[in-house]
Amino acid sequence: MPKTNPGRFFEDFRLGDRLVHATPRTVTTGDAALYTALYGTRFAVQSSDAFAKAIGYPRSPVDDLLVFHVVFGKTVPDVSLNAVANLGYAGCRFLAPVYPGDTLSTVSEVIGLKENSNRKTGVVYVRSVGTNQHGDDVLDYVRWVMVRKRDEAAAAPPEHVPALPKALEPDQLGDACPLIEPDEWDTALSGQRHRLSDYVVGESIDHVDGMTVEEAEHMMATRLYQNTAKVHFNQFTEGQGRFGRRLIYGGHVISIARSLSFNGLANAFQIAAINGGRHVAPLFAGNTVFAWSQILAVEELPGRDDVGALRIRTIATKDRPCADYPLKAGDDYDPAVILDLDYWALIPR
Amino acid sequence: MPKTNPGRFFEDFRLGDRLVHATPRTVTTGDAALYTALYGTRFAVQSSDAFAKAIGYPRSPVDDLLVFHVVFGKTVPDVSLNAVANLGYAGCRFLAPVYPGDTLSTVSEVIGLKENSNRKTGVVYVRSVGTNQHGDDVLDYVRWVMVRKRDEAAAAPPEHVPALPKALEPDQLGDACPLIEPDEWDTALSGQRHRLSDYVVGESIDHVDGMTVEEAEHMMATRLYQNTAKVHFNQFTEGQGRFGRRLIYGGHVISIARSLSFNGLANAFQIAAINGGRHVAPLFAGNTVFAWSQILAVEELPGRDDVGALRIRTIATKDRPCADYPLKAGDDYDPAVILDLDYWALIPR
Amino acid sequence: MPKTNPGRFFEDFRLGDRLVHATPRTVTTGDAALYTALYGTRFAVQSSDAFAKAIGYPRSPVDDLLVFHVVFGKTVPDVSLNAVANLGYAGCRFLAPVYPGDTLSTVSEVIGLKENSNRKTGVVYVRSVGTNQHGDDVLDYVRWVMVRKRDEAAAAPPEHVPALPKALEPDQLGDACPLIEPDEWDTALSGQRHRLSDYVVGESIDHVDGMTVEEAEHMMATRLYQNTAKVHFNQFTEGQGRFGRRLIYGGHVISIARSLSFNGLANAFQIAAINGGRHVAPLFAGNTVFAWSQILAVEELPGRDDVGALRIRTIATKDRPCADYPLKAGDDYDPAVILDLDYWALIPR
Repeated sequence: MPKTNPGRFFEDFRLGDRLVHATPRTVTTGDAALYTALYGTRFAVQSSDAFAKAIGYPRSPVDDLLVFHVVFGKTVPDVSLNAVANLGYAGCRFLAPVYPGDTLSTVSEVIGLKENSNRKTGVVYVRSVGTNQHGDDVLDYVRWVMVRKRDEAAAAPPEHVPALPKALEPDQLGDACPLIEPDEWDTALSGQRHRLSDYVVGESIDHVDGMTVEEAEHMMATRLYQNTAKVHFNQFTEGQGRFGRRLIYGGHVISIARSLSFNGLANAFQIAAINGGRHVAPLFAGNTVFAWSQILAVEELPGRDDVGALRIRTIATKDRPCADYPLKAGDDYDPAVILDLDYWALIPR
Repeated sequence: MPKTNPGRFFEDFRLGDRLVHATPRTVTTGDAALYTALYGTRFAVQSSDAFAKAIGYPRSPVDDLLVFHVVFGKTVPDVSLNAVANLGYAGCRFLAPVYPGDTLSTVSEVIGLKENSNRKTGVVYVRSVGTNQHGDDVLDYVRWVMVRKRDEAAAAPPEHVPALPKALEPDQLGDACPLIEPDEWDTALSGQRHRLSDYVVGESIDHVDGMTVEEAEHMMATRLYQNTAKVHFNQFTEGQGRFGRRLIYGGHVISIARSLSFNGLANAFQIAAINGGRHVAPLFAGNTVFAWSQILAVEELPGRDDVGALRIRTIATKDRPCADYPLKAGDDYDPAVILDLDYWALIPR
Repeated sequence: MPKTNPGRFFEDFRLGDRLVHATPRTVTTGDAALYTALYGTRFAVQSSDAFAKAIGYPRSPVDDLLVFHVVFGKTVPDVSLNAVANLGYAGCRFLAPVYPGDTLSTVSEVIGLKENSNRKTGVVYVRSVGTNQHGDDVLDYVRWVMVRKRDEAAAAPPEHVPALPKALEPDQLGDACPLIEPDEWDTALSGQRHRLSDYVVGESIDHVDGMTVEEAEHMMATRLYQNTAKVHFNQFTEGQGRFGRRLIYGGHVISIARSLSFNGLANAFQIAAINGGRHVAPLFAGNTVFAWSQILAVEELPGRDDVGALRIRTIATKDRPCADYPLKAGDDYDPAVILDLDYWALIPR
């Protein structure tokens, strides 16, 4: 049996398989500093212990997307090393705050399998749960990926496609946010005066700024998350591949878009859930990322007077400013669009 | 009212305006590690808790320029988003040590306004004060920037040009340095044997080494400081602009020059004040920075036996070694010069 | 006497000289986060406080190669500023665990001198010892470098070539590893099921993955270690030199190879000793590094039931996958080989 990990192929997965992923990871203020250096994020709760304490946190929590990337990164060697494409996410909920010093681990369960008609590949659905060192769940999400078969002739496992939610409901949000004191929320320090009720459904916001991505940056980010997907790091091989260059981790795009969205959504301080996301086109080093958002819903949370939730659709583009909210070109996406993300963010009332 | 911040134009400023800036920022050992990785700084007090404790600090303080950049970064969205040029600094004093875990905030006051004769722009003078989570002032400085008018026809505010000091006086220095034990200062560990009295006025020091700058580095640095000035990050837009490329944050140059100056000024361990600074020419990725310094003054500090101060003029160049101390070419600066900085640094007696 | 450090030339060294190096350095979780971002290392003991505690550590130790690089970096200004070539390492032992918050210092002793027959250069052998803030030795190694003479006519010091061990013995290993509970070693979390007895002498392992190196990355790494060797940072000068470009610090290659080796050696969690290493060819930005390893020995440690040691030869290449274990081309190294490293790593029994 080989010492190195060749990754699972489609026929290696069985419905109900439980995959305990390596490597547990203690997240520190060092990781938080790198996250700031990589994205320039400016949300006050995650930037300032003093701000966080003033509203009721014990200290600044770790950025929710840093938690997502770390939990996600662990699944790559066991789930997507032989993946052709990352097809989607659903039902992603943040369940407990993560603080510097917490250790994150991930376990996945195979919840769906469907061979493709070409018999060369199949779709694997996994539900992954990130936990902390106390065993508390901090993140729960489903993703599905297209995985190659080792052997086209191999028998396919029985087909099972799980039912997945299109979006989380307001009563499923907010577990990762302790009760806060909205009166102590200082809008001068947070960077914007708008609270929950200042947003309206249908409103579009151009986040104005653009950020150019360098090879060193996306590789440092992706290694920070201990994500080992080969396409991000190996110019020798990728130079001979489909794009002729390294592909940037999709999560890097999500973090850039979220950071740009501070300009317009400064008080939408925590991602409570990701309803779904689609990486519409690849991003490469040298491209400049822009973003705009549309407010899909403005909701109170059952039983909470402190925070509500905005359902936000954020579109990221490459080399294309977003003042005119680019989205579609006919039935297809505008060719500049790279990300179409649907998420819930908490915001003080 | 738009959700995004368009930045203030010249006619939006009023004398006496008080600007409370977002985002408060807790500075950590993670930031300090990144600062070391970005500049290679080697000053012993900021590198070693053991060294710092031996001379009387509770632990290593945060590098003074990291404090400066963080305090400065906060002012950008409110002061200089529509700036044409950063014209100068004056009267910059470091007032209290900053330790990992401290949270920095910045408030600015508009202390001067002067419309330019072309009526398209005006000069805004702001005094910015950085404070920690206890409300103690840690940094105080004035800068002035040329800001565009939104509307050329707009009435100009009454002209007021503040009186600014050419330099701080020795009795204004040292508040950010606790009393230290100069006998415990180990010159083998600090990297150089020269103390205050070993320097003479007029002495020039070539710092010898050169450091090439990469796009990923200056962008990571500038984002670490949460400085959002657009010209540093957006190749798509800057590629169509005046220089055809991203402009590097001037503070990045100051930090590189300061780090290079360790070779010759290893015991000048803390910047006590910046008398003034001029970014003579822009720096771009791919350029190599060199630096040399001249000692302008060697001063004891009233009431202190432990440390004195060197007034230092540091000149940084690009793609030009400094063995012959380049400065002027006729009445102008040598075309290789990019920075002319005048500051006070503390050094053990 | 000049204020700047010109570095020692060959004739400046005397047998028995004791060199106390600047700058002591407190290693933090910030440094550990950067180390992860730069190399993507995934060893569980160094990644997770929870994993480390479960087996008996008080918390995650600092990666042994990060310790090596920091201890090594300090020696550069005093030993190798005028070096022509770094010729070799021997007898490198890790002697005590290093935890975040520990401060590292280095002292070297000149243990050998040998002028070359051309009288232009000589070989200097130094034994360097890294210590922590308690005065405990944490690392001990010998390296030898070829150093230029300032003056060819200068008298050579008496020749003395020290006896150096070809390899450390098993009874010299393990001091940096506390007694652990091998039963608590969770092979699902560590990423591989193979323990000491699963490896056999002569076995070769292709580590499969490749990692492309960027200028920003190797410079950030080398500055993080406060290594000031000029060839790594200065494109202006190096552009006119032998290679036309910046040379990457050899230790950066070692760390990349070690990180790649996780795929096949995931439980070989700690480098106990480096028997020797040769930087066979230079690495430049843009190259992609691959690696493979051969098991040279599988040893129990006298008096320890918890861990044993693998003696590993790791070969790194550039732009050349290692599925066929490239090593020699005739009597010479394969032209793709850049590193030939011989070390001992601890692994649970």
